[in-house]
Parts: sequence; structure tokens; C-alpha cells
Amino acid sequence: MTPVPVPAGSPYGRDNLPYGVFSAPGREPRVGVRVGDSVLDLAAALGDDRFAQPSLGGLLARGRAAWAETRRRVRAVVDGDPPAYAVLPLDAVRLHLPFAVGDYVDFYCSEHHATILGRILRPGQEPLPPNWKHLPVGYHGRSGTVVVSGTDVRRPCGQRRGDDGPVFGPSTRLDLEAELGFVVGTGSPLGSRVRTGDFDDHVFGVVLLNDWSARDIQAWEYVPLGPHLGKSFATSVSAWVVPMAALAEARVPTPPQDEQLPYLAMDEPWGLDVELRVVWNGEEVSRPPYRETYWSPAQMLAHLTVAGASTRPGDLFASGTVSGPGTRERGSLIELTWDGAQPVQVAGEWRTFLEDGDEVVLTATAPGPRGSRIGFGECRGRILPALPLEP
Amino acid sequence: MTPVPVPAGSPYGRDNLPYGVFSAPGREPRVGVRVGDSVLDLAAALGDDRFAQPSLGGLLARGRAAWAETRRRVRAVVDGDPPAYAVLPLDAVRLHLPFAVGDYVDFYCSEHHATILGRILRPGQEPLPPNWKHLPVGYHGRSGTVVVSGTDVRRPCGQRRGDDGPVFGPSTRLDLEAELGFVVGTGSPLGSRVRTGDFDDHVFGVVLLNDWSARDIQAWEYVPLGPHLGKSFATSVSAWVVPMAALAEARVPTPPQDEQLPYLAMDEPWGLDVELRVVWNGEEVSRPPYRETYWSPAQMLAHLTVAGASTRPGDLFASGTVSGPGTRERGSLIELTWDGAQPVQVAGEWRTFLEDGDEVVLTATAPGPRGSRIGFGECRGRILPALPLEP
Repeated sequence: MTPVPVPAGSPYGRDNLPYGVFSAPGREPRVGVRVGDSVLDLAAALGDDRFAQPSLGGLLARGRAAWAETRRRVRAVVDGDPPAYAVLPLDAVRLHLPFAVGDYVDFYCSEHHATILGRILRPGQEPLPPNWKHLPVGYHGRSGTVVVSGTDVRRPCGQRRGDDGPVFGPSTRLDLEAELGFVVGTGSPLGSRVRTGDFDDHVFGVVLLNDWSARDIQAWEYVPLGPHLGKSFATSVSAWVVPMAALAEARVPTPPQDEQLPYLAMDEPWGLDVELRVVWNGEEVSRPPYRETYWSPAQMLAHLTVAGASTRPGDLFASGTVSGPGTRERGSLIELTWDGAQPVQVAGEWRTFLEDGDEVVLTATAPGPRGSRIGFGECRGRILPALPLEP
Repeated sequence: MTPVPVPAGSPYGRDNLPYGVFSAPGREPRVGVRVGDSVLDLAAALGDDRFAQPSLGGLLARGRAAWAETRRRVRAVVDGDPPAYAVLPLDAVRLHLPFAVGDYVDFYCSEHHATILGRILRPGQEPLPPNWKHLPVGYHGRSGTVVVSGTDVRRPCGQRRGDDGPVFGPSTRLDLEAELGFVVGTGSPLGSRVRTGDFDDHVFGVVLLNDWSARDIQAWEYVPLGPHLGKSFATSVSAWVVPMAALAEARVPTPPQDEQLPYLAMDEPWGLDVELRVVWNGEEVSRPPYRETYWSPAQMLAHLTVAGASTRPGDLFASGTVSGPGTRERGSLIELTWDGAQPVQVAGEWRTFLEDGDEVVLTATAPGPRGSRIGFGECRGRILPALPLEP
């Protein structure tokens, strides 16, 4: 017996087993599972050609029973003696966007984040809009610009407010947003609803997500129809999708909620005890705690579908910026620097928003069985300078 | 020689030749071209198996030269003697969604529409937001709920503002929005821009689009991130995509524009002289003139990509509600009835918003060569009652 090696304390042990898409040099992309610092080639390890595909789409669509059965088979292989040719070192492969993103909806679920943003953007007014405690506010983002961790991010150009009307140029207030993204497996037909209690039948797993945001572009464009170019130039996700099955021990009650309309009400709304870390140019600047998030994953999906919107395998919905009550628990730079007024020290420099060449890495872990930790693959991106204005 | 028959005056003659996806009874969907009241089976007529597919996606991706060559071949077949098995009566086939929608962006390009909405929703204030004359305001819609003409539309349920907080139930202010949708063929890479002058290299054609809108849901949810459930339950498009090549004679100058930032400036911004018709329960209630639209198609695409968003074959961007200066030129019921305060007579009844069982049909024509008209396939939808609240 030669099980796949897992370094002691690795958050990618047999309790995690996240899925992704990888390619070995000169080979086509296919489905893999991360085990320790290795990638298990699923088609080879299971003798199942359905995984010799460049997307998790097939697995997503096969549904909850198939997800459980696949996890059982993967675990048996990992515990057993997989053939050597089915185990590749992680640093020898390239990781790809793990699924074709259907529709991407970004919510605004953190009360701490929404409150701080309200105080910054509308000082002296009630920080939360009137609807905030009654529904998870959300909007559609651009699914075609969701990119995998490691993809460089070009600084966007756009219009921002100037003294004498708008000016055009590279964004001067480029920000990150640390979020969790939820990946739909089993879809739901047009005109139907997914109830909060049916979440586990539909959602396959979780990624880390960085909703890069150009605050100056967004501030000028967003009235009255919401964010557009300020958030459509790139959205990064981690290469590994952590299955919901790996997060059973991470379920915790959400913060106390006000009374909700019946379609959002839950006897015990649950969130996830995922601790994110925001690393900026190699220095940790924040630890946003997802457990502090007001609206739960099941409430997001119930709201998204209550008016009859259909869902498809590969749909992605995200939490919005995760922020906690502490000053070093905020998941965006606009919050960490109070809109740039309070610079933070990063690798020896006083900084506000992102500069060209900066690199942001999100990581996260959650509690697993028997004191283990469940790791999320990193979500990494580096800022490239803007394109010349008149190419 | 037995050319495909075209009734005299048909807007689907050899100058139009719109593309769609159809299925004969018991057969798989494949690409067709409408000629008069017939459908030309392209795979059979051209002897080209690339059209034996349930989507225009392949044709869209092959690019502008291939679009011209295909149009030339189709016209030669139509003028010549196509085999009888390649010509089917329109009423014997079923029409399908003609392409997989990538990202769907809806703009807000009509100054008449934006001004009237501003007056209705924010009386006493400046009707246009400060950004409106500087950029085409837009937002992402839900691509997974774009449906083909003829698909029934289930009345959505959702939250709306009540006297003592929000109430949940079927939308009480269900509206239509008459629009044109532009279909991207050749995509553009992440981090690049499509200039206004490159529009014809990228955009394949035009559909009619009904952006069904639940005004009560939208009004409560849309601050601060824009429309979500109020517009994500269904968006209908016509089954036929009119190629840009058929609309050469329809190009007209846009209304005069203010001076624009360079990326939006055009020597001669062009719109399209498309006259839409809104038919409600069999009665024409409006003729929205697209030629009155402030922001042009090329400006929409240039704006959409200026911050570096990529585009893909099958991306869809729409004009927003088309409204003209006349009272019977408005493309939505909120405008036609002044937010319900001024009912209109429809088939003998005084009406404000859509009721269960109502049917809305959008049609349109544009000028073609030698005095001919170019027809757009109808965009039809019927309202089904809401689902029971507690299914």
C-alpha cells in the first residue's frame, strides 16, 4: 500500500479532497483532486473517462448522489494504492478555470461591510439601505471575465468624476474584495424556486473569490443601475472547488437575524466558519471571518430563485465582501484604509489602494473533522499597468 | 428554376435572410434561414454539416468574412433551385433559442425613456442622472433566463414596499420593455478594447428583445446595486437574428450628441431606423422608433469593453427600452400609463400593467434596398399566473 503522501497538518488531506482542472505539460486539461501537494488524475485513478474533460461541468450536472459516490471512490483510491501515473506533483501541472461559469451573481451579505461602506460613502445618513435587513441585496456580474487564480489583472481604464465633468484614465482607486463563491451543481427550472432547506441538493462547493473593484469608476457609473465596468474587468476564483461535503464541521449559526419573510426564514440559519486571509505583497493585512456574515448561503440561493429565475450547473453566486467587526477583519481596502484616508503599512510602505505590480493572495481554512483544517486553494492576482489610452 | 417562394411585400425576402434554429417534428434542432414563410434548412441546402447544430454559435465564432460568404451562398441557393427537402413551411417547424447567451448586458440608451422615468420616479428633480449624457449606463442581466419568443412568462413573486415594511407576493406591476438586442459574433480578449469603428468586425446581428420587468420588486430592491429579481425571471428574444448585413440601408445618424470623451466620440454616430410595434392582446399600443435613441450600438460596445472586459460569441447587449418623443412611441407600460395613473384602452378595457393571460407581441421593420422592408421575427410572450406562495 502506497497511499498518496499528505504532509502532517496539511489542509488538503482525505477530509478535504477539492476538485479542479489541471494539465500536465503538453497534455489536455482534465479533472483532478488535490491531495496534499499532489494532484490525483481522476480519469486515470478511477478508470473513468468522464473525468478526461477540461471542466467539472459533467460532475456538477450529475447531482448530489453522484457527488457523494465520487467522493467515496476518490477517498478509497487515496487511502489505497493509486497507480503512480495517476498522481502528479502539484508544482508540475498548470491549473485552469475549473468550470464554465453560467450566471454570476454577487451579493452584499456582510452587515459589517455594508455598514462601513454606508458610513464612508454616505456620512451622516443611515448606513444600511432600507431593504438591507429584509433581503440579501445582489446583482449580476460578468461571468465571461471570471478568471482562475494566477491570472494577471490589467488595471482598467474608465470614467471617473472630475471637477469639470468626468475624466477618463486608468483607475486610481483599484481595490480587492475577499469573498466566498458558491458553485451550483444541480440546476432548477425556470419558474420554480429553491427553498432554503434544499440548498444541499443544488450547491456543489465553494471557491475563494476576489471581486476586483475600481472604486472611482464604480462611484461615477452606478446610479441608477448598479455596478458595471467598475467590476466587470476581472473576477478571480481559486482553482480548487471545496465540496460542501468537506465543510460539514464548518457549519455554524449565522449572527442573530431579524424576523424574515417566510421564504427566507430558517429555524437555524447556518453559515460557515471560514477564516479568510488577505495577503498584499506578501504581508497579511486582514483576516475576514465569514462566520460573521449576516445572510446565509441558503438564503442567497432562495432569494436568487424566488421570482422564478432558473439556475444551471456552473452558476456562481458570491457572498460579497467578507468583513468582521475588527479593524483587521475587513475584506476590502476601501474599508481597511477608510476610503484612502488612513493608509496602512504594507511591506514597509504606507499604502491605500492597489498599485501596478502589487500582488494579492487570498487564502482560507475552515474546521474539519477531528481537529483537522480544510484548506481553500489560494486566489492570487497581480496588477498589470493599464493599456495606453490611445492604442 | 424553382426559387423559394416569397409573397409580394414580404419583409423576409432575399434582402433579409435572418438566421435561427428550428426543428422539424421528431428531428433535432438545426440552423435555418427564414425566406418568406419558409425555413431553409442550411445544412441540407448548402450541403454543410456545420449547420446541423442546435445553435448559431459556430457561425458566430467564424467571423465577419465567413458571415459574408455564408450570406452569399444562402442568397445563391434562394435565387436558384434549392432541393425541396431543404425548404420547410414555417408553420411546420418549432423555433428555438438561436444561440447560447454568454453575458447579457442591458443598457439605458433612450433619452426619452430615461427622462420620462426620471420624471415619474423622482418628480421635481433633474430627470437624468449626472452620468447619463457622458456614458451609456448599463448593467448585467441574467443570461440563463433569456428565452425564445413564444415561451410563456410566469408572473414573478417577490418583495415590494408596504406600509409596515416589505410584503411578499405576486408582482402587481408587471411591465414590458421593447428593445433591440445586439448579438456578438467575434469576441475580444480580456484586457483589450473594441473601438467604435470596429463594431462591424464583432457584431453579427440584431434581435427584438422584451426585458420583462416587475416594477414593484425592482423599486424595492434596486438601491444600491441595481435591478436583480425585478428583471431576472425572463427576458424574451425573437427567434430570428437579422444580420447586420441586412441593415445597411437602415443606418441613420443618431440624434445630436453632446461632446464625448474620445473613446465614445464618433465622427458620425449611427443608429438604425428600426420601427418597433408593441401589440398588447392583439391591439397595437405603441410604435417605438429606435432611430430616436441617443447612444448608438457602436458606443454601447465600446463602453462595454473600455475597461478591458472580454466578449464572446453569443454575448448579447441590448438598447434598453426604446421610446420616442410621442405619447404613443413609448416602449414600456410604466411610461404609456404614467406609472399606472393614466390607464390606456386595450381591446375595450382600461388597463395599466400586465394581467395574467395577457399576451405581448413585439414586431419591427426597417428599410431595406429598393424600398423593401426588413422584418424582425416577432417577440411573443404570454403571462402565466404566479406560482402558489407555499408550494
